Amino acid sequence: MKYTTAQAIQILERTPAVCTALLAGLSDDWVMQNEGPETFSPYDVIGHLIYGEQTDWVPRAKRILEFGNSKTFDKWDRFAQYELSKGKSLQQLLAEFAEERKKNMIWFKSLQLTETDLDKKGMHPVLGEVTLRNLLSTWVVHDLTHIAQITRVMAKQYRSEMGPWPEFFRILNF
Amino acid sequence: MKYTTAQAIQILERTPAVCTALLAGLSDDWVMQNEGPETFSPYDVIGHLIYGEQTDWVPRAKRILEFGNSKTFDKWDRFAQYELSKGKSLQQLLAEFAEERKKNMIWFKSLQLTETDLDKKGMHPVLGEVTLRNLLSTWVVHDLTHIAQITRVMAKQYRSEMGPWPEFFRILNF
Repeated sequence: MKYTTAQAIQILERTPAVCTALLAGLSDDWVMQNEGPETFSPYDVIGHLIYGEQTDWVPRAKRILEFGNSKTFDKWDRFAQYELSKGKSLQQLLAEFAEERKKNMIWFKSLQLTETDLDKKGMHPVLGEVTLRNLLSTWVVHDLTHIAQITRVMAKQYRSEMGPWPEFFRILNF
Repeated sequence: MKYTTAQAIQILERTPAVCTALLAGLSDDWVMQNEGPETFSPYDVIGHLIYGEQTDWVPRAKRILEFGNSKTFDKWDRFAQYELSKGKSLQQLLAEFAEERKKNMIWFKSLQLTETDLDKKGMHPVLGEVTLRNLLSTWVVHDLTHIAQITRVMAKQYRSEMGPWPEFFRILNF
């Protein structure tokens, strides 16, 4: 599947609603547990997505459009949400994510990116040269894989209640 | 996390809305592709969930409550939806799943299951003896892991557009 901005927006625009449908109103047993040290709970994931909206995808896209590969992206803290989400309810985080994403979608749609824009290069501090197309595709994949993570983490909480059934669920060993 | 019917219902009731938030209105490029032979597309998954409502979870729970482990569950066809979904739009399938699940939730809530009920045993044709608690926990996990699958399958469609980024996404190799 080739990247198109129209199809990327189809996913990016709906992710906050998906997260809300998935998590709003659940008991803490479902949303506060993770997969072990340095892994995310569903609650952590929403904070991580907010931080991404504020500091990763859009700032990096802007840097590519403004500086090309002459100015390396800032490094990104995968664990920033442990601090930033403190004291906030999941409901607050879901609303905050929806708001940040909405703002970013307005900006993103206003760009009217061409194929030439998508080929523009930027410099990732670890991965080296990347294109704007790579960055935007990864933004979409980052949404989708974090939804997969949220549901996998929740599924694992019932593993011990399933009797012999886990052997049919390869994903529980991921 | 221990199984409770209240917390199981929190997940089971919302899955149709999650699937709709995730898939309604997407272009076919997102919903009709899979991960290779004998794997499911997002479209296939919804048909599979419908078939599960009709022939798996509730009929098996009924069999346990009625016959215990003296009558083995019927075998279950993981690929039945290839035939059953034919000619139906994704929108139709999403509506059908929501309807079937709603009906099953009314029945499920009416049971008022006790701990003694949850300990009742049934006979799985492959796995052998299971409890009603095992079956109901697995129903929840089946929902969650298929949502994980849907988003993973969609994420993989952009793999080739991500440049060097896939190395940060272990799930794309699953």
